[in-house]
Amino acid sequence: MKKPLLQLALDSSGLETALLHASRVADHVDVIEAGTVLAFAQGMNAVRELRARYPSHRLVCDMKLLDAGEVLAAGAFSAGADWITVGAAAHIETISAAHRVATQMGGEVQIELFGHWTLEDARLWIRHGINQVIYHRSRDAQAAGVCWGEKDLTLMKALSDLGMRVSVTGGIVPDDVHLFREIDVQAFIAGRALTGDNGVQMAEAFHAAIERDWQE
Amino acid sequence: MKKPLLQLALDSSGLETALLHASRVADHVDVIEAGTVLAFAQGMNAVRELRARYPSHRLVCDMKLLDAGEVLAAGAFSAGADWITVGAAAHIETISAAHRVATQMGGEVQIELFGHWTLEDARLWIRHGINQVIYHRSRDAQAAGVCWGEKDLTLMKALSDLGMRVSVTGGIVPDDVHLFREIDVQAFIAGRALTGDNGVQMAEAFHAAIERDWQE
Repeated sequence: MKKPLLQLALDSSGLETALLHASRVADHVDVIEAGTVLAFAQGMNAVRELRARYPSHRLVCDMKLLDAGEVLAAGAFSAGADWITVGAAAHIETISAAHRVATQMGGEVQIELFGHWTLEDARLWIRHGINQVIYHRSRDAQAAGVCWGEKDLTLMKALSDLGMRVSVTGGIVPDDVHLFREIDVQAFIAGRALTGDNGVQMAEAFHAAIERDWQE
Repeated sequence: MKKPLLQLALDSSGLETALLHASRVADHVDVIEAGTVLAFAQGMNAVRELRARYPSHRLVCDMKLLDAGEVLAAGAFSAGADWITVGAAAHIETISAAHRVATQMGGEVQIELFGHWTLEDARLWIRHGINQVIYHRSRDAQAAGVCWGEKDLTLMKALSDLGMRVSVTGGIVPDDVHLFREIDVQAFIAGRALTGDNGVQMAEAFHAAIERDWQE
């Protein structure tokens, strides 16, 4: 399986703070994400500013969009995003519309898994050309003490077996990386872990864990 | 039942266009909404600009948020929103966090119904203090020819009977208003119908239909 990438999620509401966080650790990550908080606070200008500074990184706009797939996707891809996120609860027409625009503009759609989605939904998304999902331990669930567990891992494995590349997020740390060894992980996504004072060390610890656990 | 309000959804990506649309018809609507397209394109600046121009209207920020309830809610209420929307697929902790901030800041949360939600979910939301939902015929579903039907109306009535005020959106026209007579409608939400050349006439047609069908 391909080695997972490391993704930096920028979730401050201020652009200056986000750019400062990015500048500290960008050389140590593969993917940069304009998080929902940043995107809503600053609009697509945040994506444009990140693209201007980081022309070679993969850039994600985490919209979790649920409607208006065509317009929202076009806005994000025009601003420089490579990938955008669509909420799992979106109507298949919304997902298709976003995917159509992504294909035209050289981007990709990632389905972010929230709420009562099923593997049947995942099969439908695949039939509509989607091959990336984000498995997400909600920030608020996490704060309430909900942990990674066997159920999460089994679902991720099932998605992976269907042909989905799975990005994993929600308070993940390098010591957790080995848990996902059997899954086709696209990226490990971390925010606060990478934007703190020890961000670079943390990024290197992620890469070391990935190297160790994904030896060919 | 209380008379439904009329809500203008602003869904252009340009701020100038949105403000122009608002200026044409604001005197004829009760609620102004910064739609997801506008909010993502321009960030919370769009909400601030609308609040500055329309201090007395009820102002909605249609975020359809799915995570980071506290931070996103605080951003929108600080910018001047009265109501924000949260996607039905959000974790209950996210909904609670957004509702807590709303209560502190004098606002309200509306749950926007997308995906596989159930009436059991609705009961859970009510137990957590939510009393507004948005019943939404997706823009993309609509474009694909999916129409209002008995199933929609039955579900809306069930939500209404649970104690939810229901806002209705998705290509609604004045001739449809009577369909919702048995439902506790908070607002009829229209976008392009009210931002076109005949926006004022259309708004007045909505009000006339509401007056006719909601006689006390």
